[in-house]
Amino acid sequence: MSATTRWEAAPADAGLLSPVRAGTEVEEAVGDRAWLQAMLDAEAALARAQATLGTLPADAARAITTAARADRFDLRALALAARETANPVVGLVAALTEQVDADSPQAAQYVHRGSTSQDILDTGAMLVASRALRVIRADLAKVTQALGSLALEHRDTPMAGRTLALQAVPTTFGLKAAGWRRQILLADEHLARLLAGGLPVSLGGAAGTLAGYLEYARLEGVGAPDGPDGYPQRLAAAFAKETGLARPVLPWHSLRAPVAELGAALALTTGALGKVAVDVLSMARTEVGEVAEPGPPGRGASSAMPHKRNPVLSTLIRSAALQVPLLAAGLAQCLMSEDERSAGAWHAEWSMLRECLRLTGGAARCAAELAEGLRVRPERMRANLALTGSQVVSERISAVLTPRLGKAEARAVLADAAETSRREGGTLTRALEADPRLSGVMSPQEIARLADPAEYTGAAAALVDQAVTS
Amino acid sequence: MSATTRWEAAPADAGLLSPVRAGTEVEEAVGDRAWLQAMLDAEAALARAQATLGTLPADAARAITTAARADRFDLRALALAARETANPVVGLVAALTEQVDADSPQAAQYVHRGSTSQDILDTGAMLVASRALRVIRADLAKVTQALGSLALEHRDTPMAGRTLALQAVPTTFGLKAAGWRRQILLADEHLARLLAGGLPVSLGGAAGTLAGYLEYARLEGVGAPDGPDGYPQRLAAAFAKETGLARPVLPWHSLRAPVAELGAALALTTGALGKVAVDVLSMARTEVGEVAEPGPPGRGASSAMPHKRNPVLSTLIRSAALQVPLLAAGLAQCLMSEDERSAGAWHAEWSMLRECLRLTGGAARCAAELAEGLRVRPERMRANLALTGSQVVSERISAVLTPRLGKAEARAVLADAAETSRREGGTLTRALEADPRLSGVMSPQEIARLADPAEYTGAAAALVDQAVTS
Amino acid sequence: MSATTRWEAAPADAGLLSPVRAGTEVEEAVGDRAWLQAMLDAEAALARAQATLGTLPADAARAITTAARADRFDLRALALAARETANPVVGLVAALTEQVDADSPQAAQYVHRGSTSQDILDTGAMLVASRALRVIRADLAKVTQALGSLALEHRDTPMAGRTLALQAVPTTFGLKAAGWRRQILLADEHLARLLAGGLPVSLGGAAGTLAGYLEYARLEGVGAPDGPDGYPQRLAAAFAKETGLARPVLPWHSLRAPVAELGAALALTTGALGKVAVDVLSMARTEVGEVAEPGPPGRGASSAMPHKRNPVLSTLIRSAALQVPLLAAGLAQCLMSEDERSAGAWHAEWSMLRECLRLTGGAARCAAELAEGLRVRPERMRANLALTGSQVVSERISAVLTPRLGKAEARAVLADAAETSRREGGTLTRALEADPRLSGVMSPQEIARLADPAEYTGAAAALVDQAVTS
Amino acid sequence: MSATTRWEAAPADAGLLSPVRAGTEVEEAVGDRAWLQAMLDAEAALARAQATLGTLPADAARAITTAARADRFDLRALALAARETANPVVGLVAALTEQVDADSPQAAQYVHRGSTSQDILDTGAMLVASRALRVIRADLAKVTQALGSLALEHRDTPMAGRTLALQAVPTTFGLKAAGWRRQILLADEHLARLLAGGLPVSLGGAAGTLAGYLEYARLEGVGAPDGPDGYPQRLAAAFAKETGLARPVLPWHSLRAPVAELGAALALTTGALGKVAVDVLSMARTEVGEVAEPGPPGRGASSAMPHKRNPVLSTLIRSAALQVPLLAAGLAQCLMSEDERSAGAWHAEWSMLRECLRLTGGAARCAAELAEGLRVRPERMRANLALTGSQVVSERISAVLTPRLGKAEARAVLADAAETSRREGGTLTRALEADPRLSGVMSPQEIARLADPAEYTGAAAALVDQAVTS
Repeated sequence: MSATTRWEAAPADAGLLSPVRAGTEVEEAVGDRAWLQAMLDAEAALARAQATLGTLPADAARAITTAARADRFDLRALALAARETANPVVGLVAALTEQVDADSPQAAQYVHRGSTSQDILDTGAMLVASRALRVIRADLAKVTQALGSLALEHRDTPMAGRTLALQAVPTTFGLKAAGWRRQILLADEHLARLLAGGLPVSLGGAAGTLAGYLEYARLEGVGAPDGPDGYPQRLAAAFAKETGLARPVLPWHSLRAPVAELGAALALTTGALGKVAVDVLSMARTEVGEVAEPGPPGRGASSAMPHKRNPVLSTLIRSAALQVPLLAAGLAQCLMSEDERSAGAWHAEWSMLRECLRLTGGAARCAAELAEGLRVRPERMRANLALTGSQVVSERISAVLTPRLGKAEARAVLADAAETSRREGGTLTRALEADPRLSGVMSPQEIARLADPAEYTGAAAALVDQAVTS
Repeated sequence: MSATTRWEAAPADAGLLSPVRAGTEVEEAVGDRAWLQAMLDAEAALARAQATLGTLPADAARAITTAARADRFDLRALALAARETANPVVGLVAALTEQVDADSPQAAQYVHRGSTSQDILDTGAMLVASRALRVIRADLAKVTQALGSLALEHRDTPMAGRTLALQAVPTTFGLKAAGWRRQILLADEHLARLLAGGLPVSLGGAAGTLAGYLEYARLEGVGAPDGPDGYPQRLAAAFAKETGLARPVLPWHSLRAPVAELGAALALTTGALGKVAVDVLSMARTEVGEVAEPGPPGRGASSAMPHKRNPVLSTLIRSAALQVPLLAAGLAQCLMSEDERSAGAWHAEWSMLRECLRLTGGAARCAAELAEGLRVRPERMRANLALTGSQVVSERISAVLTPRLGKAEARAVLADAAETSRREGGTLTRALEADPRLSGVMSPQEIARLADPAEYTGAAAALVDQAVTS
Repeated sequence: MSATTRWEAAPADAGLLSPVRAGTEVEEAVGDRAWLQAMLDAEAALARAQATLGTLPADAARAITTAARADRFDLRALALAARETANPVVGLVAALTEQVDADSPQAAQYVHRGSTSQDILDTGAMLVASRALRVIRADLAKVTQALGSLALEHRDTPMAGRTLALQAVPTTFGLKAAGWRRQILLADEHLARLLAGGLPVSLGGAAGTLAGYLEYARLEGVGAPDGPDGYPQRLAAAFAKETGLARPVLPWHSLRAPVAELGAALALTTGALGKVAVDVLSMARTEVGEVAEPGPPGRGASSAMPHKRNPVLSTLIRSAALQVPLLAAGLAQCLMSEDERSAGAWHAEWSMLRECLRLTGGAARCAAELAEGLRVRPERMRANLALTGSQVVSERISAVLTPRLGKAEARAVLADAAETSRREGGTLTRALEADPRLSGVMSPQEIARLADPAEYTGAAAALVDQAVTS
Repeated sequence: MSATTRWEAAPADAGLLSPVRAGTEVEEAVGDRAWLQAMLDAEAALARAQATLGTLPADAARAITTAARADRFDLRALALAARETANPVVGLVAALTEQVDADSPQAAQYVHRGSTSQDILDTGAMLVASRALRVIRADLAKVTQALGSLALEHRDTPMAGRTLALQAVPTTFGLKAAGWRRQILLADEHLARLLAGGLPVSLGGAAGTLAGYLEYARLEGVGAPDGPDGYPQRLAAAFAKETGLARPVLPWHSLRAPVAELGAALALTTGALGKVAVDVLSMARTEVGEVAEPGPPGRGASSAMPHKRNPVLSTLIRSAALQVPLLAAGLAQCLMSEDERSAGAWHAEWSMLRECLRLTGGAARCAAELAEGLRVRPERMRANLALTGSQVVSERISAVLTPRLGKAEARAVLADAAETSRREGGTLTRALEADPRLSGVMSPQEIARLADPAEYTGAAAALVDQAVTS
C-alpha cells in the first residue's frame, strides 16, 4: 500500500461527474471534511460524557474537545492511513492524541478511552446523516409548499390523463401536482420519523459489550454494570446527550438497521422526486409542451443548439433517482453483517450511505427550484386534449350508452366510431353522429355535451381539495 | 403471441428452485391462484360497495360475489390472455362477466362498472400482501419468542466476540441472541406499521379521477363529487370497508409508495433474518462448532457425505436475504412511474413484489424453526475462548496497565507479549509473567484474574436484561 | 418444515404476474419440469460417461437413462423435499434410484455414483440455459432481420432527433432502427460467445477434487488421476460429450463465473431490447404518433377505454428490462461464494438465473413481434419536424452564419430569433428574415433552403448503409 | 442553483470513506482532474482530426491542443457550472474557448466545432476507462502470477474442503489457489477483450448524425457524406487515431453498450477478487488459522486490541465486491436511454462508471498485495483435517463399502459410526473398527489407510497442473 498520489493535483471528486449535487449545501454537509469533523465530534462528546460520569477528568475532556477541530488535521493523510487498518479511525485517534498531547500532555491518554473504531465512525455517520437529513427536509418543505400552490392554482385546469403512453381520459394538472406533493410528504414522514426516533449513537466498545468503557470506570472506582441505572446506561445516555443523537437499546455494530433504514427512506425520497421529474419530462416534450422548467439565463443551454432550453432540473433529479435505490439495496444487504463486526460489509456502507445522502439532497435542491419555478401552459393542455377528436371521453359516452343499448352494443358502436375516426381522420363525435344505431338514442347535442373533456374530470377537484388541505 | 405450451406438463414454477419457500403457507398465500382470488375479491367488493351506495343493484352485487370464486376460472388461460393486454384484468373481466351472465344475465353489465384494470390488480395485490404479511408476522413472533428465551438462558454464557473474522474480546451468546431478536422486532414494527396504517385499496378509474364511477353514479341520480361526503369519498370508504383495506388520500396508480414501502420493509426483514443466518453459519463451522441447527431425521443430508448435517435453514434464509434487497430496489425504482399509469414500471412490480413476499415468508418460516430448535454448545464457546491464550482479554490488561505504565509502554508490553506468544506458542499470560517490565507492577495472580474471559463480558448481561424485557 | 399446501389448487406460478413470458417457448424451456428433466439428463449422461470409460456397467447406464424421464417423477414432492436438504438433488437421487430399482434392481446402485448434488444441479442449469439461449437467439434473429429491413426502408425518412426530451436536430428513422439493430446484434454476440465457448458441465464431486468418481474408478481398477489423459480428464470429456456441453478447465462449484456471465449477457440483451421499447413508447405517444405497435384484434385493449390500443409489446419488454439487471447483479454478487460450496450464495442463484432467462426470452419474443409489425408514420414524423418552426435546424444556420458574423454574433442572432418565435409564435425562419443584422448576409432564399430539415440529416443515410450491410 | 460552498475547506471526497482505493494509482487515473484532462484531450484530438482532413486550420488545432491542459482550468468552477446545463462540457467549452482566445484569438472559433457535449464527455470517459483498465490489468497480472506460484507450491498441501460451512472431503490448497487464479484470468480476459476491441470514441454531433461536423466541412468545401470513404468515416477514423481509441460502427449517444459492458466486466472482476477475499476470511478465522494476511508493521492494527492483526486486505476487497455489481446493474439499466440522448440515464452513468473503475482498481491493488504476501500454514490445515476424526473421508469409506455391503447397508454403517463418534467423541475410524458388521469386511488396517485425508485428494494435483500450466 505504498501507492501515493499527487493529491493536490488530483482530488478524487470535486463534483464534476455529479452535477445534481455539485455545490449544494448537502454536498458540503456530507463531504470528507464534514465526516472528519463528525468523527472528531464523536470523540469529544465521548470524552465529555465520561467526564460527566466522573470517569475521565473534566480538564481532559475540555482539551480533547478543543483539539477536535477538523482544520487541525491532514485529511488526505488520514485517508491514506486508513488503508492500513481498513478504517480511518485508527489513524484519527493517533493524530488526535498527538494534537491533544501538544496542548495538554496529561490529557492525551484519555483520547478514545475504552472505545473502538466503530463507535466513532458510526456515531460520526449518524451525526453526518442527521445534519444532511435536516438540509434535505428543508428543501422538501419548499417542494411541497410550491406543489401545494400549484395544485390549488390548477385545481380545475384540464389536461389529458395518460396511461401506457397514450391519452386515456381527462384529468387536471392540479390533481397531478397534488399527487406529487402527497408522495413527497410521505417520504418526508419517513425521514422525520428517523430523526424523531433519533439516529442512534454507537457505543459498544470492541465487541459490543462496553467492556473497555466499564473497565476504565472500574479502575476509577465507578461502574456496577447492572440495572437500569448502571454505568453503561448512564454512559450511553450522556453520550447521546452530548451528541444530540438518540440512545439505542443495544449496541449495533453488526445490527445495521439504522443504516439500512436510512437507505430505504432516501430511496423512497428520490423516488418520489423522480416521479415529478419523469412527469415533467413527459409533459415538457416538444410535441406536448404543457410545462417548461424555470429558465434563468444560461440554464439548460446546449453546447450545439442555440434554441434549446433543456429540462436540466428534471434530468438531474432523474439521474439521482436511478442510482439511490441501488445503493440503498447495498445498504440493506449489509444487514448480513457476520459476527460482532463484519469484515467488509461494514466498510462497504460508508460510501454508499454518503452517496445516498448527497444524491437525495441534490435531487431535493433541484426539485425545490423546479417546483417553485415550473411554468404551466393550460392552453397547450387544452390543445392536446382536443387532439384525439374526443376519443379521450369515449369512456364517458360508453357509460351513458350502456344502459340504453346494452354493454356489448354500446362497446361496438364506440369501437366502430373510433375505427372510423382513425381511418378517416374526423372526430369521434362526428362518427357517432353519423351512426344510425344512435338515432333516437343519443342526440348530437347530447354527444357534444358529453364530449367536452373539461366536463369529465371526475373527482379531480374534490381530490385536490382533500389532499392539499388535509 | 401465438406461442402455446403444454401447460399441464410444464408448470412454470412448482417451487423446485426456491426451497426456502416451497410448501410454506406464504407460498400458497401469494401464488397465482391466491392472486386471482384476490382480484376477484376486489371485483366483488367493488360491486358491493357500489350497491351500498345505491349505484348498483344489490342483487347484481350478490351475483358478482357468488361468481367471483377462483376455482371457476381457467388460471392458465387468463395468464396467456394477459399477453394481449399487458395485464390479466382485461381477460379476467371478460371471464367474470361470462360467469355472472351464466348465473344472472341482468347482473353481467355491472361487472367492473366504472372501473379500470389497475384498480383491480392493485387492490388485489394489497389483499395478497396483507394476507402474506400476517403469515410472515406470525412466524416472526415465533422467532422473537424463541430468541428471547435463548437470550435469557444464555445471558451469562461467555463466547468469543469476533470482529473482522478474528476473536476480539469476550461477549455472551445471550447478548448475541438479544441483538438478533431486537433487530427482527424492529423489522416487524415496520410490517406492523404498514398493516396498521393500512395497505390501501386502489380506486381511481381510468386515470385516477374516478370519472367512470362518478358517471355511472350520475346516471343513477347520485353523486355530487364535492365535499368530504361526496360520492368518491363514500365509494372509497365503502370499498375499503368491503375489502378490509385502508382508504388512501389519493388514487395511487402512478404514486407507487405503497408498493415501494412494502419492498423496503421486506428487505429489512430478510436482512434481519439473514443476520441470524450468517452468524449461525459462522458459529456452526466445523472448527468453531458453537451451535448446530436442529436436526430431525433427513434434515441436512448430503447426497455424497454420510456424516454431514448441513445447516440448511441458515443456508436457505441467506439465499433469500441475498435476493430481496435487489427486488426491493426494483420496486423503489418503479416509483419513477410516468404519467397516470406507467408503460412498464407498473408491470415490472408484480413479480418482484410477489417474490419479495414469498422469499421473506420462506425465510421467516425457516428462521422460526431455526430459533426454536437451535442447539447451543457453551462448552465449545469456552474452548474457543481459550484458543488464543488470553489474547482475547488483552484489551482489559491494557486498560489496567495504562495508568500504571503510561499508554505507550502498556501498549508495547502487550504487543511484545502477543508477538512472543504467537512466535513461541505459549499463552499471553505466560509471556506477560515473564516480562521484567511488569515485575512489581502486576502480579501473576492479578494477571490470571484479569485473563479470565468469563470475567470480561462487560455489560452483556445488563444489556440482555434491558433488551429482552423492554 | 411440515408445511403442506393444496398444490393442485395453488400453483405457485402459472404466468399470471409475468405476461411478458406467459406462454412463450422460453417459459416452458426453463420451467420446473424442464429443469427437472435437465437434472435427470445430467444423471443419465454421467452414468453413460462412466460406462464409456468402463467404470460403470453399460446396462446400468441404459437403465438409468431409461428411468430418467421427468414424467415419471412427482415434481411437487421433489420441491417439498428440497427444503430438508436445501437443494432438490438429494431427493431426486432417491427418487431416481427407486425408479431404476423398479426396472433393474442391479442398476440402482450406480445412480449418482461418485457424484454430488452440485454436479447435477449445475450441469442441469447449463443444459436449461443452453436450450433457452437458443430459443432467445432465434427470436433475436427475427428482431434484427426485421430491424434491418426497417432501417433500409426508412434510410431517408426524416424525423426529429430528440435529446433531453426536446427536439434537437433532424435524424432519420432508418438511423434509429439501424442503431437498435446494432446493439441487439452486439448483445447476441455475447450470447453466441457463451454458447460457442460452451456452457460447462459441472463435474467436481463432493468438494471439487473428483475424489468420489476416482475412488469408484479405482475400485473398478481404472483411474490414474494424473496427466492430460488421466481419468478425471477423460471423464469430464465424456460427460461433456454426452451432454453436449463444454468441459471446463476446473470444477466450478464455487467459481461461479459461468452463471455470472450468463446474467451479464442477459442483462445486456434485455437492455438492448429495452432501448427499442422506450423509443417506441416515446414515439407512440398520442401527441407524437410517429409509430404504432402492430395491432391484431384484441391486442392492447383497455378494460375501460374503447378507443385505446395500448403499446403492450413495448410495455412488456420494458417491464423485463427493468428487472433483469437487478437479478444479474445478484448473480454477480454470488461470485463471492465462500469455501468449496457456498451456504446460500449458490442457492440464491437458481431462481434469479431462471428469471433472467425467461424475462429475456419473453422480451425477445415480444420484440420479434414488435419489429416485424411496427407501423411507421413518416407523415407524422414530418409534421413533428415542422412544429418548432425550423428551430430544429438552428444548429445548421448557426454553422453557416458563424464564419460570416463571428461566433458570438451568430449565436446572438439565433438566440434572439428563437426567443422571438417563442414569444410571438411564428417560425424561426420568419424571425430571421426580419432580423436587420442578416440583411446582405443571408437571403430569405438561403434561409429557406437551410431550414429544410430533410436536408439536414447529416451522415444518417451513409451510417445506415454502413451499419446494416456490415 | 445559487448554492455555494467553501470548497477549499470541504472537498467532497479525499478518499476517507473508501480506503480500498485511497491513494491508489487508479484513484488518480479516474479522479475529477483526470476526467477533465480526458475531456480536454478529446477536444484537442477532435480539432487535430478535423485539421488532418483539412476542415480546420492546423494552427488552430495546435493552439487548441496547447490550451487543453487541465491545470489551466478551475475544476471546481466547472463542476458548479455543470448544474446549469446538466453536464460539465458546456462550461468546459466556454472556458477552453477563453483559454485558446487568450493565446490565439483566431483559433478560438474552432473549439468544439460541429460538436456536442456528449461526444466530448463520452470520449473522455472512454479515455479514462482505458487508462484505468490498464492499471487494473497490471495489478491483476501480479495477482495471477502470485496465485500461480502458490498453486504450484501447495499442489499437494491437503486441507479440508468445506461445503455449506462444514468440512466435507479433503482438497488441497493448491487447487483452491488455482481456482482463484483461473477465475481472475477469465475476468481479465473480459477486460482485455474490451481494450482490444477498443473502447470507442464518441462522434455523433447533436443527435448522432454528425450533421454539424458535415456542415462545417461543407462550408470548407469538403465532405460528401456517402460511401465508405465519406467524410464522416474519415473523421471518425482520424478521431480514433488521435485518441488511441476505436472507431465505432455507429454513434452511440443512446446506444450505451460500451458503458454497460464495462460495468459487467468490472463486476466480474471484483467478484473474482471477492471470491479470494471471502475464502481468505474464512481460512483466517481464529479457530481455523490456515492463512494469514501479510503483515508489515501497523497493518491491521486495531484501535482497541493490541493483539489483533486484522485481515484488512480481504476486508477491503470484499467491501468493493459488494458494491460494484449494484453499480454495474445501474449501468445496464441505463441501456434504456430514450431518444437520441436520454434525460437522466446518461447523467446517471458518470459517477457509477467511475466508482466501478476505482473500486475494482482498489480491489485489484489490495489483491496483488494479498496474493504476493499470503502466509499459508499447512500444519494448521492438517490439524483441522484431523478435527472430525476422519469423518472427512467418510465418502471414501462409503465408496469402498458399497460394493461389499450394498448401498443401503454401507450408508447405515457409516451413519451409525458418525452418530457414535458425535455422541461419544471418538474418531470415526474407532467407531468403524468396533462395528461388528465390518468384521471380515474391512480390516482395521484398511480402515486406517482409507482414513488418511492426504490420500483422498482425488484429482487435485492433476487439476492444478492442468490449470496452472494451460
